[in-house]
Amino acid sequence: HRQANVCRCADVQEGPSPMHIFAGMVYNIFILTGRMIKMTSERLKKQIQFVLEVDKLKNIFRMTKIHDGTRRENDAEHSWHLALMAFLLGEYSKEPGIDMLKVMKMCIVHDLVEIDAGDTFCYDTAGSMDKLEREQKAADRIFGILPEDQGRELRELWEEFDAMETPEARFAAAMDRLQ
Amino acid sequence: HRQANVCRCADVQEGPSPMHIFAGMVYNIFILTGRMIKMTSERLKKQIQFVLEVDKLKNIFRMTKIHDGTRRENDAEHSWHLALMAFLLGEYSKEPGIDMLKVMKMCIVHDLVEIDAGDTFCYDTAGSMDKLEREQKAADRIFGILPEDQGRELRELWEEFDAMETPEARFAAAMDRLQ
Repeated sequence: HRQANVCRCADVQEGPSPMHIFAGMVYNIFILTGRMIKMTSERLKKQIQFVLEVDKLKNIFRMTKIHDGTRRENDAEHSWHLALMAFLLGEYSKEPGIDMLKVMKMCIVHDLVEIDAGDTFCYDTAGSMDKLEREQKAADRIFGILPEDQGRELRELWEEFDAMETPEARFAAAMDRLQ
Repeated sequence: HRQANVCRCADVQEGPSPMHIFAGMVYNIFILTGRMIKMTSERLKKQIQFVLEVDKLKNIFRMTKIHDGTRRENDAEHSWHLALMAFLLGEYSKEPGIDMLKVMKMCIVHDLVEIDAGDTFCYDTAGSMDKLEREQKAADRIFGILPEDQGRELRELWEEFDAMETPEARFAAAMDRLQ
């Protein structure tokens, strides 16, 4: 019984003191917090860089004019108009229960690749030939600015819109033809 | 027993024939469908009128310039930018579980009243004095173009945004200050 007591005592003396354990914990939390702040700030930095980059959509002009005919419409205002139409005209979707948040996100991001690839007029045969390649390259660069998870989400939204295979994509595309 | 039989026979002969009942049903369905088509087309007409009217937001220019500094930004492209920022930066909302669809709708509609009321620069003291009155009048006219239920929804979204009392409104307003 005594032996056991001595043993325990020896264990405590050989191991770290409570003060050391506490200091170690503080140190680890400090390092971890530092890493988290670094991760957060890098994530935020990428997001802000993207937000600034996509400002360029305001300088991508379409063949269509704004309603008063005074000038051509740019992709940013066109995307805004689509998003508004989508939630006002959602009741006319032939497929019930469409995810309106997804539709609106699609409307907002569907033209982003045109920052690099430009607006390909649908009757421009030459332009239409390498449209796919130009747009894929643009998607790599533009969505690549974002943190990986968000870059993937936006790229998937854009690809889903283009494929027109889901109810949400078909509805967003219908708004695009209407606007 | 015989008497009863005669009675039933007389009843049938006095009432409408199956042919008459069928013709009546067809007639009623015809009238009802006509009314429904008229209601639908009037609803759709108002919605389309609104969609065309809000195109004017593309000609309401803000004091701020687009990122490359070449020209002032208009309210439509500004609203698009907000909606995109909202769903990219939603993770930084201090209040958990915000309704992102509502936030995006707010971003899309928050400046519509400026079609009539104009963009009141926040340091314009004179303009700020009657801003509320001008914007209420604008809301009456612009949201009044829509079918009543949708006009009410959009007005409530705009009022909620302006009051900044809900988590969604506070987050959308934070995006507005950031952009």
